[in-house]
Amino acid sequence: MRLYTTPASPWVRRVVVSILELGLRDRFEFVPTRWPHDWATRTVAHGGSFAADTPVQRIPALVTPDVTLVESHAICDFINAELGGYRLLAREGAARWRGLADISIANAVIEAQILRRAELLRTADRSADFIAKMRERQLRCLAALEPRVGGFGPAFDLAQITTAVACGYQDWRYPEDDWRTGAPALAAWYDRVAGRPSMTATRPAETPQS
Amino acid sequence: MRLYTTPASPWVRRVVVSILELGLRDRFEFVPTRWPHDWATRTVAHGGSFAADTPVQRIPALVTPDVTLVESHAICDFINAELGGYRLLAREGAARWRGLADISIANAVIEAQILRRAELLRTADRSADFIAKMRERQLRCLAALEPRVGGFGPAFDLAQITTAVACGYQDWRYPEDDWRTGAPALAAWYDRVAGRPSMTATRPAETPQS
Repeated sequence: MRLYTTPASPWVRRVVVSILELGLRDRFEFVPTRWPHDWATRTVAHGGSFAADTPVQRIPALVTPDVTLVESHAICDFINAELGGYRLLAREGAARWRGLADISIANAVIEAQILRRAELLRTADRSADFIAKMRERQLRCLAALEPRVGGFGPAFDLAQITTAVACGYQDWRYPEDDWRTGAPALAAWYDRVAGRPSMTATRPAETPQS
Repeated sequence: MRLYTTPASPWVRRVVVSILELGLRDRFEFVPTRWPHDWATRTVAHGGSFAADTPVQRIPALVTPDVTLVESHAICDFINAELGGYRLLAREGAARWRGLADISIANAVIEAQILRRAELLRTADRSADFIAKMRERQLRCLAALEPRVGGFGPAFDLAQITTAVACGYQDWRYPEDDWRTGAPALAAWYDRVAGRPSMTATRPAETPQS
């Protein structure tokens, strides 16, 4: 199976940490992609198999012999169910919905982080208001995750993975937000899980532009 | 269960059509929300239960006695599995991944539609390049759905619902794109399903601003 990646994307990281936590690294070929900074406002021309494999032309994208999945929600669902024996998220019932409740908030953090990043990459038409709105959403949702940390179980599951990736991206791109002050229990939890091999192996780094 | 809605949102429509197709309307209280146009660049102050119920402060949001889900992916998963007996998407296996492959492309269309809408609502700092990028993604992904229509089964399932909602929003907000020319089989399919009661009951309309 072919997974298109970048080292900067939290959506990619969420998938890769899932793969590493499940011990499935040897099942995947990771294919790095390159993104000039004008990706924020222009369609990037991709060569090779990427353009043919995914009409969305975003990462992550997973190509299996039978199917191509072009968003991290679907990819994580596939990896958890088809390859992971539901070890990262329960197949059904209350445990699944509790996990998805956490995940849906953590996803909202990541989405705001990426939209803000794209706005910051604009060389024209950059909206300070939009950036402020995204920062407010990030901090509001991180604060909402704060009381949920106490409910996290012993397993580093998809809810915890997604939350940890959101925290890690926040530290990397937006240290000036000082998110830890508004979510100290979350920060303490994150500092513990950030040392896991799956997390240290996937520390964010700038994506090659060319 | 309480579902926060607007009549304009394709993410809401996807959830409501799922509810109607499953015959579950009487299980939900639909709570309309209001959005002044500056939602595109400012955090909207919401009163009532909405702000307390969801830290993301976006629609759709579903509040059940046990859990709150704040994105349509999780909400559709919950409705399909917990209330719908997996009639909209298979629980597991190849049928689930084929469905999610279609869904992940249709979701990308909707996401681009909404990001473009938010950009068009800006009264300053509006990027023509960003708008063009989103239009290109919409049309590229709709064209990618074109050959997939032949694989649609007899049931109006979540893949078809999501695809139809994307087509409906495209007609409503972006008729100038003329998407039908690049996807004639998709358009013919959409014109058939657009007459279903679940679709006619949820035709998009402007969201009240106040």
